[in-house]
Amino acid sequence: MDLISKLKHFFMGSPLPSWEYRHQRLSKRVALAVFSSDALSSVAYATEEILLVLMLAGSAALAYSLPISLFILILLGILIVSYSQTISLYPKGGGSYVVAKDNLGKTPSLIAASALLLDYILTVAVSVAAGVAALTSAFPSLYTHKVIIGVVIIIIITFINLKGVKESGAFFAVPTYLFVISMLAMIGIGFYKFFTGTLSPVVVQTQVTLATDVTIFLILRAFSSGCTALTGIEAISDGVLVFRKPESRNARITLIAMGLILAVLFFGITFIALKLHVTPLQDRTVVSSIAESIFGGRNILFFAVQIFTMLILFLAANTGFADFPRLCFFLARDKFLPRQFTNLGERLVFSNGIILLGFSSITLIILFQGSVHLLIPLYAIGVFTSFTLSQAGMVKKHFTLKENNWIISAIINGSGFIITFVVLIIITVTKFVNGAWMIIVLILLLVTLFKLINRHYNSVARQLSVEHITKIPFHSKGNIFIIFIPTFHNGIVQALSFAKSLSKDVVAVHVKINEKDTDLITKNWDKLKPGIQLDLIDSPYRKIIDPLMKYIDAVEKKYPNNNVTVIIPEFVPKKIWQQILHNQVGLAIRTAIYFRKKTNYLCMSYHLEK
Amino acid sequence: MDLISKLKHFFMGSPLPSWEYRHQRLSKRVALAVFSSDALSSVAYATEEILLVLMLAGSAALAYSLPISLFILILLGILIVSYSQTISLYPKGGGSYVVAKDNLGKTPSLIAASALLLDYILTVAVSVAAGVAALTSAFPSLYTHKVIIGVVIIIIITFINLKGVKESGAFFAVPTYLFVISMLAMIGIGFYKFFTGTLSPVVVQTQVTLATDVTIFLILRAFSSGCTALTGIEAISDGVLVFRKPESRNARITLIAMGLILAVLFFGITFIALKLHVTPLQDRTVVSSIAESIFGGRNILFFAVQIFTMLILFLAANTGFADFPRLCFFLARDKFLPRQFTNLGERLVFSNGIILLGFSSITLIILFQGSVHLLIPLYAIGVFTSFTLSQAGMVKKHFTLKENNWIISAIINGSGFIITFVVLIIITVTKFVNGAWMIIVLILLLVTLFKLINRHYNSVARQLSVEHITKIPFHSKGNIFIIFIPTFHNGIVQALSFAKSLSKDVVAVHVKINEKDTDLITKNWDKLKPGIQLDLIDSPYRKIIDPLMKYIDAVEKKYPNNNVTVIIPEFVPKKIWQQILHNQVGLAIRTAIYFRKKTNYLCMSYHLEK
Repeated sequence: MDLISKLKHFFMGSPLPSWEYRHQRLSKRVALAVFSSDALSSVAYATEEILLVLMLAGSAALAYSLPISLFILILLGILIVSYSQTISLYPKGGGSYVVAKDNLGKTPSLIAASALLLDYILTVAVSVAAGVAALTSAFPSLYTHKVIIGVVIIIIITFINLKGVKESGAFFAVPTYLFVISMLAMIGIGFYKFFTGTLSPVVVQTQVTLATDVTIFLILRAFSSGCTALTGIEAISDGVLVFRKPESRNARITLIAMGLILAVLFFGITFIALKLHVTPLQDRTVVSSIAESIFGGRNILFFAVQIFTMLILFLAANTGFADFPRLCFFLARDKFLPRQFTNLGERLVFSNGIILLGFSSITLIILFQGSVHLLIPLYAIGVFTSFTLSQAGMVKKHFTLKENNWIISAIINGSGFIITFVVLIIITVTKFVNGAWMIIVLILLLVTLFKLINRHYNSVARQLSVEHITKIPFHSKGNIFIIFIPTFHNGIVQALSFAKSLSKDVVAVHVKINEKDTDLITKNWDKLKPGIQLDLIDSPYRKIIDPLMKYIDAVEKKYPNNNVTVIIPEFVPKKIWQQILHNQVGLAIRTAIYFRKKTNYLCMSYHLEK
Repeated sequence: MDLISKLKHFFMGSPLPSWEYRHQRLSKRVALAVFSSDALSSVAYATEEILLVLMLAGSAALAYSLPISLFILILLGILIVSYSQTISLYPKGGGSYVVAKDNLGKTPSLIAASALLLDYILTVAVSVAAGVAALTSAFPSLYTHKVIIGVVIIIIITFINLKGVKESGAFFAVPTYLFVISMLAMIGIGFYKFFTGTLSPVVVQTQVTLATDVTIFLILRAFSSGCTALTGIEAISDGVLVFRKPESRNARITLIAMGLILAVLFFGITFIALKLHVTPLQDRTVVSSIAESIFGGRNILFFAVQIFTMLILFLAANTGFADFPRLCFFLARDKFLPRQFTNLGERLVFSNGIILLGFSSITLIILFQGSVHLLIPLYAIGVFTSFTLSQAGMVKKHFTLKENNWIISAIINGSGFIITFVVLIIITVTKFVNGAWMIIVLILLLVTLFKLINRHYNSVARQLSVEHITKIPFHSKGNIFIIFIPTFHNGIVQALSFAKSLSKDVVAVHVKINEKDTDLITKNWDKLKPGIQLDLIDSPYRKIIDPLMKYIDAVEKKYPNNNVTVIIPEFVPKKIWQQILHNQVGLAIRTAIYFRKKTNYLCMSYHLEK
């Protein structure tokens, strides 16, 4: 085992045999934690994003946050009902890609896949950025280092996933439930104080902005920002198989539970933020301001809320690392992505997908300076594209399947489709200049790329097909060997001996680059008489490859019915680094012949002992 | 001809045949220009470097610049006489490396070579930095961009040299003589004004510094800085062969002429700088301040001086690009550097040496922020190391040769040796903390590196020697071919057919990674009946290389007296970029077998048509 393997095993753990690849089944309570970190954690930033938009029209406009969040709750209800139908009809898992592919055809499914891939990358970037924001709200001195902290966090999550995460219940359950409990406590105390009249608004730190009017466009923009609260609710529909029996029923119950918790947390935070007159500040989050006010200062409870928020957000980022590589696998299996994405690594994880996700999300964090607010406009559009396509697919499914009560189901998914489509348009229009255009361009590029890759694989498969072959065509045209002689040494002697053992039709060729080598060869040819014809080629421009290839051209032309093989003798130094002290002529010849249609090469290495 | 070659030829010109590699002989007047740009251009910064040190002790201390420069002139005289003797005894060129190798043995010659290599890199860096300083003195708005300008200049010079510079007289003569004439004019007017009493000091822009005392150490430091005026005077002794006959005599006359011009320019500038009370400023050079004062403002004459100064400095940098690759060639030929440095490129230049010099000097410019003043402490030490070793070698030579008047010659070179050695120690001590230590460390590292490389080449040569071989050992142990079957397709069919034509001893091997491929292979084996044994290997950890290598181990062990060759069939996509869509298993296997002692491989590529 070489050094690289050793290092790899040290950091990554020993390789796992294939038979360990199986799922464990999860109880509802654990599954809720596993699947809901993404959805629930979004309450950490959704309210703030609404307020950030409304604030452009001055503090008075903040009151609109309440009706906006109510609209979002209605949307949430519709999505929960719609996805609960998806779970019924796709008990093996109904991600948008699967549903769209099954019902709508190739292009819509590829659009859904592109939207989802971008969505997963953004889940990682936004969640990590928000998690870091929770951290820096607690420790403001870290604020200036937020980009580097975010990058390091993603690197750590990437390594953990490359090592392979066992879907351990506790790993997910503990931070998720701690977050939910701490949020419920915060909201509960907030409401108690509100109803007893002891909730006193925090001092508004007025940020002087040029207040614009409250327009419909502004309200819709705020609504679009708030829709990020809905990201991640499709997760359960994608993982039905992981539930204990009866899978569908348990998954649906879990979905509804998640919807209810999300509704309570999101509305509670928005309501209290409004009543506390909390406004977003650059270096601390709305949730942290609420916590500080409710708990009466930066005490242990305040820090607990920040830490739990941070943890669930990092957990949410982690779910991207489960979803993204799996979707890459599906796409690669369907020949839309390079087949390297189907490789199960030594630790039984799709390493290439994990690494790609790590790189992409780090790039985003750096480009957008670790700012949640700058990333948000890119986020919701992918989510709602896949919502819309998923709902449209479900409608089609009902029409095809005509199962019991299919008309009612079709109406539910149909209204889900219409509403998510309208929201998608609202998001696209209101966020277009802020970055939504990038996602649209990227989706188009990805779909094109998928199709090109698919076309290539299909073309290769057709060309390589052995369908029509009935027997292997054996021939006895004879084999011609050309042995390349760069200079004369021990390895060449061995190679000449080997060449003679292979065939009678051997010819040696030398390209004259410097006189010393040529003299050495001719002298030894006279002395040792190898019994092999030696052809010397002139090379006025001191090139080796070009004259050699012309020589091979001539041999191929002269013997069109024979196999031609070039023997390339190379000496290999004892230590790898010593290679740089020697000409890489062998490598150049090998590469040149690799791209020739007819001639093959045989690489014969002579190993130095010291 | 592929695209890369086309692009290369477009930018670099067509390749040149070997027979064009010859020298043209130069007249004394042209040779003076060709060889003296380095030495003469150093007057552009040497005076300034003396003043910069003296200024630490306040403006009054500047007066010491006159005696210091007189000492440097004496040193110059001694060096000119010494080198004129080298020219007599080494008419084929007597660079320090050659003289040291010839007389002092391996280690001293390698020290000289290291010192010279570093010296050439610094010549490029310092000359370009000083040239840019001349430019930014004329156009101060460019000052903040000096690093990037310097880097671009080096890149341009590198490309010009890769393209190959014809040693055209005009190319060197015009800027060199323009510089000399403009400097002589400036100095002449200066002296005229001085003797007519019309030379009025410029307003001293006092820079508040903590004045230290005038110590011996400070004077010696200033002297060390001024010694940079002497860099480049060895150039003629290295290029005697380029002169017209009688070469030695013409070279000596040219050397003396160069010495005289250098003396006049250096002393003149130092004298006038003192009388004008010019002090170095951060963003303009001393020479530019003198020119502005003498010519009465920033007029056409002022700009001409700056431009000519800049040009001769870039020309001086260019000489590094002739010397460095040539010394690399000598070292590589003597097996102290990788032999790639002996490759003559298509344009008959030592491309690798040129590229290495370009990279190294760009690195210096960036690390030292394009500042002449920061680079200077590194510069003189290499120059004086090679001076010292060269003089020591000459003394030895006289004692060995005992030619006419050898005692007088030995005394001259001996005093040259003693003086340059003393100066070397002064420079080392006074500049040690400012960067001289780096050069000492680098020289030691380079000498060690040279020796390690030499040891490797000698060991390889011994191991590859065919001296003891009297005939090529032919055997008929028989050849075993193992054909690697990753899946089953058209290319495999062709490879099986080829393998059967090569030998009767063919066995096929497949590593079971996924069931689909294994099924495809066994099904086709049954259908097509290739008549070749198929071995299936399990691989629980989904690895290919490890089980395959174990299989080869077993074959090697079973048939110790046969040649084993692995046939690796690969399909090659039509377009190169399509490679990334396919597994690189073939490459991995080729690499693994390349490092095996016994088994060879035969790469058989099947080319897709579309």
